[in-house]
Amino acid sequence: MTWTTLRHRVDDGVLTVTLDRPDRLNAFTPTMAGELERTFTEVNEDDDVRAVVVTGAGTAFCAGMDLGSDGNVFGLDESRTPTLSDMSDLNSPDIGRVRDTGGRVTLAIHACRKPVIAAINGPAVGIGATMTLAMDARLMSTTARFGLVFGRLGITPEAASTWLLPRLVGLPRALDLLYSAEVLDAQAAEAAGLASAVHDPDHLAKEARALADRWTLGRSRVATALTRQMTVRNASLERPEDAHRVESLAMFYSSIGDGAEGVSAFREKRTPRFTRPASAMPPFYGEWIAATENV
Amino acid sequence: MTWTTLRHRVDDGVLTVTLDRPDRLNAFTPTMAGELERTFTEVNEDDDVRAVVVTGAGTAFCAGMDLGSDGNVFGLDESRTPTLSDMSDLNSPDIGRVRDTGGRVTLAIHACRKPVIAAINGPAVGIGATMTLAMDARLMSTTARFGLVFGRLGITPEAASTWLLPRLVGLPRALDLLYSAEVLDAQAAEAAGLASAVHDPDHLAKEARALADRWTLGRSRVATALTRQMTVRNASLERPEDAHRVESLAMFYSSIGDGAEGVSAFREKRTPRFTRPASAMPPFYGEWIAATENV
Amino acid sequence: MTWTTLRHRVDDGVLTVTLDRPDRLNAFTPTMAGELERTFTEVNEDDDVRAVVVTGAGTAFCAGMDLGSDGNVFGLDESRTPTLSDMSDLNSPDIGRVRDTGGRVTLAIHACRKPVIAAINGPAVGIGATMTLAMDARLMSTTARFGLVFGRLGITPEAASTWLLPRLVGLPRALDLLYSAEVLDAQAAEAAGLASAVHDPDHLAKEARALADRWTLGRSRVATALTRQMTVRNASLERPEDAHRVESLAMFYSSIGDGAEGVSAFREKRTPRFTRPASAMPPFYGEWIAATENV
Repeated sequence: MTWTTLRHRVDDGVLTVTLDRPDRLNAFTPTMAGELERTFTEVNEDDDVRAVVVTGAGTAFCAGMDLGSDGNVFGLDESRTPTLSDMSDLNSPDIGRVRDTGGRVTLAIHACRKPVIAAINGPAVGIGATMTLAMDARLMSTTARFGLVFGRLGITPEAASTWLLPRLVGLPRALDLLYSAEVLDAQAAEAAGLASAVHDPDHLAKEARALADRWTLGRSRVATALTRQMTVRNASLERPEDAHRVESLAMFYSSIGDGAEGVSAFREKRTPRFTRPASAMPPFYGEWIAATENV
Repeated sequence: MTWTTLRHRVDDGVLTVTLDRPDRLNAFTPTMAGELERTFTEVNEDDDVRAVVVTGAGTAFCAGMDLGSDGNVFGLDESRTPTLSDMSDLNSPDIGRVRDTGGRVTLAIHACRKPVIAAINGPAVGIGATMTLAMDARLMSTTARFGLVFGRLGITPEAASTWLLPRLVGLPRALDLLYSAEVLDAQAAEAAGLASAVHDPDHLAKEARALADRWTLGRSRVATALTRQMTVRNASLERPEDAHRVESLAMFYSSIGDGAEGVSAFREKRTPRFTRPASAMPPFYGEWIAATENV
Repeated sequence: MTWTTLRHRVDDGVLTVTLDRPDRLNAFTPTMAGELERTFTEVNEDDDVRAVVVTGAGTAFCAGMDLGSDGNVFGLDESRTPTLSDMSDLNSPDIGRVRDTGGRVTLAIHACRKPVIAAINGPAVGIGATMTLAMDARLMSTTARFGLVFGRLGITPEAASTWLLPRLVGLPRALDLLYSAEVLDAQAAEAAGLASAVHDPDHLAKEARALADRWTLGRSRVATALTRQMTVRNASLERPEDAHRVESLAMFYSSIGDGAEGVSAFREKRTPRFTRPASAMPPFYGEWIAATENV
């Protein structure tokens, strides 16, 4: 399969995904959605990759939904597009097919087993902004902009952003950002808690790479995968007992695998040699993920 | 129906609700609870209102439960008030009727379709403080005070504040505020994350108005209503998939309604003319709200 | 029963628990886990105690799991320790017994009816760090260190930390701390939101004591117990209605108990004389706790 909206490059374990429609400011299309969803699903099985960086080609990160495209942002079959009156029957198959494509992308990022870093090199607007909320960190260049502009267009926030945004910046600020619907510069985005750092444009890629290395170099890939999934999922559970249960299994699994090597290396004051790949997830993993998803 | 504890004024789309018992420092009574609950329910259907500001008459915002009133803060029929020994049977109808009236008010604010701004003009203590936690922003005058004083009285926090407060200020600070039970001045309240801004007393009403305008002027009322409800509810869900599902329907509904006009206006670089009123919520709205409430 | 890893001292209502294996930097063992779990369970019934402070003997707080001990961190019967291949059958009794002992400790702290303050006097690493996340405040001496180092060892975070940490510092910082797996000095830990204050080593015990007094002196113990449990549990509920329900009962129960004395004292401008002990929890308490736990 070929890619028409993205470029992929793996360099020493770090996959850089470049949104690659620079003539359209990397505007989001249903095709790009499908390619992003596929990227974050396939990377789970790719043991050559320990972290992912997402950035944009040219001067923009992603200018939002491409209003010049076919506009089929719901992944619907054009021949059976629901109408407003169809919405009176929520059980109709046509309404059941209404799935925001931005949300499909952020759910795939949510389920990813590798840390994902947004290197926001320019304007990130609409879905260009919300897609980054599911990533583990947002680094911005001083030329970046961040716009949750839905409110100005008469539409509503998507890409699971009503779930994600309050987790990043707290509920009062989430409401203020969505109601205000303003485009923030990088400094304002950092002050709002949307970005963890702002860098000179020339240093952004290097800083994203350094963060990916700091998080994953010399680490057990299976332990990192378990840590990511447990943290993003358990953070929202009602009961700590449920977190405890999966943590117990993950700790047991890792302690008799890569953890045995890790502890030996620590005692012997040497660098650990982890070998178990991220694709070798423990037997409980699939059951647990299925229990915590229900789409 | 007349109002005995509140004043209402609508000025160009913004409803100002004034707690109006200045001789009692606007202390809260069961009657005020009922009038506030009715206000936040009825405003949902009022298309002349795009935002709500709550403030107090005179020098106080609200001095808390009126200890000089009948004290029936649980909305109970005096002739069948439960006793301590009744609590050994939680299934008794008398215990089932025990419902904190402050909580009835904050649940009504929680379910409101319009942004709600607290303009805290003076002391806000007890229920006077907790009622504001369900609002979208708290602006304070320099003369305001904020007191979660329950702990000093041997009673427990109410008005859904044990759910709301950690969402506003984080769990460790919520515990500190509730255990300490101190009355904070405006600067301390802002530092604790309880207020988003502190203004000169003479400017408070004007600033609350400006924020209401910044959030809602020229916006689609149905999109704002959906955004408010999705953000306050989805922020607490265990699974992002559940947020994604309702976001998909809301985005679809808005995109073929006010959103079509919004996108056209954006392309044509003109001001959008939204007309669909907030009272015209989509067919899925009622089902979704019912599924996320269960009182 | 005697204690082999802890020292206990009650001084005017404040229990100080000292991790007491100074020759091993107070490293955590299964025995210490059991003694901590027992401490936080038994203190619920002890009306002589209104708050708990946890600190370490000597120069460390707790250096983490004692890698020189038997290493049975899962509380497993050595004769039937599961193997990696056993994990293909999650329903096997051996896998069902896999329970992280650190999690048993933090769940006991979570369920405690008294405020718990960590006085982190030196390095707190691994379980030495995560056990404090379930406490109500973390005070650090300038000589303290805080290390969520699991990632460097090829193992995964435990002690319900994937549930607790995002509640304390937000999701993005939680991920950064777990991936980075660095040992932070006290100033960095405070900046990350892990500590509420940093004190001179000579003042740490006195400051912890002062905070315990500020939170509990002259307060109703039953109201404090209800406030603690409602806040830590309700903060994570999906629906505010569920918080409202238990708040209503707690407010009713407290208002006709210690609250009646508290309000009288307030009106008479005198110090309240609360007598109902924390062990006299209301009839609904047991049912509610059982409904919110499910281990």
